[in-house]
Amino acid sequence: MIVVMQPGATQEQVREVEQRLRELGFKSHPIYGEEKTVIGAVGDKKVLSLEAIINLPGVEKLVPIMKPYKLVSRELKKVKTVVEVRGVTIGGEQLVVMAGPCAVESWEQLIEAAWVVKEAGAQVLRGGAFKPRTSPYAFQGLEEKGLEMLARAREETGLPIVTEAVDTRDVTLVAHYTDIIQIGARNMQNFQLLREAGLTGKPILLKRGLAATVEEWLMAAEYIMAAGNPQVILCERGIRTYENATRNTVDISAVPLIRENSHLPIIVDPSHGTGSWKLVTPMARAAVAAGADGVMVEVHPDPSRALCDGPQSLHPDTFKRMMAELEPVAGAVGRTLL
Amino acid sequence: MIVVMQPGATQEQVREVEQRLRELGFKSHPIYGEEKTVIGAVGDKKVLSLEAIINLPGVEKLVPIMKPYKLVSRELKKVKTVVEVRGVTIGGEQLVVMAGPCAVESWEQLIEAAWVVKEAGAQVLRGGAFKPRTSPYAFQGLEEKGLEMLARAREETGLPIVTEAVDTRDVTLVAHYTDIIQIGARNMQNFQLLREAGLTGKPILLKRGLAATVEEWLMAAEYIMAAGNPQVILCERGIRTYENATRNTVDISAVPLIRENSHLPIIVDPSHGTGSWKLVTPMARAAVAAGADGVMVEVHPDPSRALCDGPQSLHPDTFKRMMAELEPVAGAVGRTLL
Amino acid sequence: MIVVMQPGATQEQVREVEQRLRELGFKSHPIYGEEKTVIGAVGDKKVLSLEAIINLPGVEKLVPIMKPYKLVSRELKKVKTVVEVRGVTIGGEQLVVMAGPCAVESWEQLIEAAWVVKEAGAQVLRGGAFKPRTSPYAFQGLEEKGLEMLARAREETGLPIVTEAVDTRDVTLVAHYTDIIQIGARNMQNFQLLREAGLTGKPILLKRGLAATVEEWLMAAEYIMAAGNPQVILCERGIRTYENATRNTVDISAVPLIRENSHLPIIVDPSHGTGSWKLVTPMARAAVAAGADGVMVEVHPDPSRALCDGPQSLHPDTFKRMMAELEPVAGAVGRTLL
Amino acid sequence: MIVVMQPGATQEQVREVEQRLRELGFKSHPIYGEEKTVIGAVGDKKVLSLEAIINLPGVEKLVPIMKPYKLVSRELKKVKTVVEVRGVTIGGEQLVVMAGPCAVESWEQLIEAAWVVKEAGAQVLRGGAFKPRTSPYAFQGLEEKGLEMLARAREETGLPIVTEAVDTRDVTLVAHYTDIIQIGARNMQNFQLLREAGLTGKPILLKRGLAATVEEWLMAAEYIMAAGNPQVILCERGIRTYENATRNTVDISAVPLIRENSHLPIIVDPSHGTGSWKLVTPMARAAVAAGADGVMVEVHPDPSRALCDGPQSLHPDTFKRMMAELEPVAGAVGRTLL
Repeated sequence: MIVVMQPGATQEQVREVEQRLRELGFKSHPIYGEEKTVIGAVGDKKVLSLEAIINLPGVEKLVPIMKPYKLVSRELKKVKTVVEVRGVTIGGEQLVVMAGPCAVESWEQLIEAAWVVKEAGAQVLRGGAFKPRTSPYAFQGLEEKGLEMLARAREETGLPIVTEAVDTRDVTLVAHYTDIIQIGARNMQNFQLLREAGLTGKPILLKRGLAATVEEWLMAAEYIMAAGNPQVILCERGIRTYENATRNTVDISAVPLIRENSHLPIIVDPSHGTGSWKLVTPMARAAVAAGADGVMVEVHPDPSRALCDGPQSLHPDTFKRMMAELEPVAGAVGRTLL
Repeated sequence: MIVVMQPGATQEQVREVEQRLRELGFKSHPIYGEEKTVIGAVGDKKVLSLEAIINLPGVEKLVPIMKPYKLVSRELKKVKTVVEVRGVTIGGEQLVVMAGPCAVESWEQLIEAAWVVKEAGAQVLRGGAFKPRTSPYAFQGLEEKGLEMLARAREETGLPIVTEAVDTRDVTLVAHYTDIIQIGARNMQNFQLLREAGLTGKPILLKRGLAATVEEWLMAAEYIMAAGNPQVILCERGIRTYENATRNTVDISAVPLIRENSHLPIIVDPSHGTGSWKLVTPMARAAVAAGADGVMVEVHPDPSRALCDGPQSLHPDTFKRMMAELEPVAGAVGRTLL
Repeated sequence: MIVVMQPGATQEQVREVEQRLRELGFKSHPIYGEEKTVIGAVGDKKVLSLEAIINLPGVEKLVPIMKPYKLVSRELKKVKTVVEVRGVTIGGEQLVVMAGPCAVESWEQLIEAAWVVKEAGAQVLRGGAFKPRTSPYAFQGLEEKGLEMLARAREETGLPIVTEAVDTRDVTLVAHYTDIIQIGARNMQNFQLLREAGLTGKPILLKRGLAATVEEWLMAAEYIMAAGNPQVILCERGIRTYENATRNTVDISAVPLIRENSHLPIIVDPSHGTGSWKLVTPMARAAVAAGADGVMVEVHPDPSRALCDGPQSLHPDTFKRMMAELEPVAGAVGRTLL
Repeated sequence: MIVVMQPGATQEQVREVEQRLRELGFKSHPIYGEEKTVIGAVGDKKVLSLEAIINLPGVEKLVPIMKPYKLVSRELKKVKTVVEVRGVTIGGEQLVVMAGPCAVESWEQLIEAAWVVKEAGAQVLRGGAFKPRTSPYAFQGLEEKGLEMLARAREETGLPIVTEAVDTRDVTLVAHYTDIIQIGARNMQNFQLLREAGLTGKPILLKRGLAATVEEWLMAAEYIMAAGNPQVILCERGIRTYENATRNTVDISAVPLIRENSHLPIIVDPSHGTGSWKLVTPMARAAVAAGADGVMVEVHPDPSRALCDGPQSLHPDTFKRMMAELEPVAGAVGRTLL
């Protein structure tokens, strides 16, 4: 931490800051510039209320030097984390494709989608049983019935499943059925849910919050890892910006940025990221080219009758074309798709 | 809903859209322009999967005409809602000031802050017992102990209390102690929490999410009202923008905008909104001048030792000055403060 | 400047950074922490390519300590700047109200608006002769004819005028007619235009760019002052955020922030800031309550026939009501309006 | 245009809107819903002040149906535009790579960079002679001397050049030397500059503004085309968002979005887009995979001594590696690089 004093701060004010730093177990190193004095605070303690120092007289601002996360950091663990789920690896040389409907609507819809995505080469089946919806009047999901259908679809197709938990009270139930627990964008900073999901020991797919910085996202992953669960998969799904031609703005640069700062695998969801099925395939190609470990896409047997997120769901034929287009891109960056 | 067809859409495509609208119980009214055809869909049914129509061939985009919220709407209820809590009214002529520490840290800290804010004229005591923190290593609150202290401070000072619930499992516990349940910005779209809090029947203080539109915010309030609880107080606390000179950007225009669209009371939290105690007083004045029903501010007996949000907490003397400055502004807009 | 070294940076890398700092005329002060080394760079030289140091091996990031602006800074000049234009003072105890149509459309429209705003108490007449429009097919202004009408309206009403310059080639022409030259939001970083306008010696009204930070805005003012012109008036007119219920988001907190960091006067334009006439009056009240030195608003004799920005223009009666509501708010913060 | 009436709007108000529409040359088609009436306005006239209708009594909002741009639209011209500059094609099957230093600093620096980028396969040399800089104290470019050096570098290497014009007064001068005129992000809505540059007849590289929507960007291109110049190359260079781990957020989805809506070629500048040389190569790969027609990158012989944008400039070796990595990605999407 660097403490920057105001121009004109008195010697006494500098001394008071230094004394408070010592009280908190830090060594202080003042540097006297032409106009301002700055004080370096060195210590091995995690003292998070250090920020209160800004209220001492004469202090202008604080500049943190250390990154706030540890367990998720590439500095701590150089080797990339590979998550394994029923024989599917996420974060290795092979890319992962998670696909399926936004919401589980019926057994027929689910199993049709499941076979479609499996045959086209997807390795994980996605589908929502608990749906967080902006409107209380929108379809909220089939809940436990949906979970049962997902498990049955896994039995029939052999595809491991990923589905979202939205309430701490349901985490055990969801974990009972699913292979990977998804934490949705709206819940990225629902810290109780993160901890609860972490405690199940199941792999966690952690979506980036709509307005979360990369640092806050990694801090959310830190919550899960601090609960003893190292199996975290990050998922970029678009951030909220002023641009409204797309539902969100997919931040592809988050992919190499996460790669540089963390050992965790990262995938991209271009369906939620763009909100428009026409943009899904080019953005999936971009994600893979940027170094993502895979993609997550919505596929519906008949998008024009979907109960949720129809506009961004791929028709089965479009999904097959997407897979065909992804393969050479995967090869171009030294990865395999199928 | 208006369905806009692509330029060059065929007659058959228009007919297919009209037929699907009829299937869904709508009447269709096509208008043939020079380059594009648009189809007005009129119906009394809430058909939310109507958006799937965008996947029909030839459709370019959908334009919703109706607002998605009902119960919170000024169109439905012209008279402003006034929430009453132990003799304090929120939404009436008198402004409400909710003040106290970010987090309950100890009995001494809480009761000192409580007397300070009461003596300066605050009518509600705020304080966090469950704290959602970005870092798993930060102080997370005293939990039930904190709730007990808040209740005891209410007994001693007579101030009603407001405190946050962060987990569906704790809502009953929090409701047992508090007068107003706060839903924090990070949980604005934690729909299970909204519903659970709504079911307690206690007044709910609903903070705006960091990246929530005014419409999404009102939809979150709609969740609470749809659970049968009409006592919702909205709280603007700053939105996330590119500007980083302040912690967030307080959207003061949300105050008259909410006033125009909803009957619910709205207050402003300039402490979280700006992140800097120096900006709290001018922004509190602005909030009142814009028509807010009150403000919520953080006050700490010794901000330089606060365990949470020190930089934005007011020193007791600064809080007194703020109250002195707010009073004439209240008068200027026809409201009373004390 | 603080240079933060990567964890694991070698002694040699630290030495190389220190040597480069010395070459550039700086003294270096290394501080050795547990995990990272940081190096304080102290010097009196403005060395702007210092940022290139980030490319030296082992460097993680640079942290600037000094603010990049000088002339506009409150640290340099404690006393507030007061701009005087034909007897009207901007930045003093009395608030300034600049009002008039978005664009000068005809002599009749202009002079009617001029008398309306003058009679209601405005001190400066605004009106655009050169209009920057998003579409090449929209009305682009009456150009020099518009300037002549503005000058004639000044003669008749006695109101000083403010109008925008959009091209370096027109600055002399605009300066010939106007009392205050406006630099619009789109041109805030048109540095040639800033310099040219600065050189005229006329007071400059500098609108904040749509996506400009407060710091960038002050740097734009620094360009004008560096051209020898100290008469700069800042104008907050809303920033672009994700919220689309308003045209822009008025950043009221910029008012106290500018007050703290600069000696320049600041006014607020709630017409462009909100894009909706219904929000103009409450936001004008908020601006004054927050400490603004005045407001700038659009008034049109018949907004439903305006050629530009009709939706945000006030009807003459609404403007009168706004003035009546502003007066007590001005008094509440120790200012006068009329 | 659709006019949406307020709930409760009277028949007379609807008639008044219809009459005004007729006055403006439109046919009106009212649709009466349960709660609201909407009026479709059909006409072949470009009536841009139509928005003033929002001020008529009873009107709630206006919904535009037509896109505001024409000449740049894919609806008007289905075939992709290919720009040709001294034998280099932009927008065809072969990708274009524009590379070189941020600013021309000296002949030695420029020619060294020029040979480096040429040998690695770049087809166009970039370099700034007029530099728009946030600070008036930063290096502002060599101006005409820089232009002469660029022209000399073209002679020696055979590479066509692209450089920025920042002032209407310099457009002729810049056009005299350069092959492609760049309009920078800060000037995207400097409409006089757009028109002046358009009139030169030279190909224009139009960077997206920092806070410009895709629609506003296309409208800026429309200004150039409306000046009679069809040779416009769009360049995505990152937009401003709340995320500050990168300098800007590269909006890769703009690439397929532009492809869908316009016939103009689009390239991506990952140097300005990310602000960090480490992210340039993965983002260049992503751009190509998403369908961009090329990339523009900054290359400096010694980035640690660059006078401008050092942190984002590629070292010559890194640039060579980037080119090597781009080639297979180009192949994977059916394009060629070299």
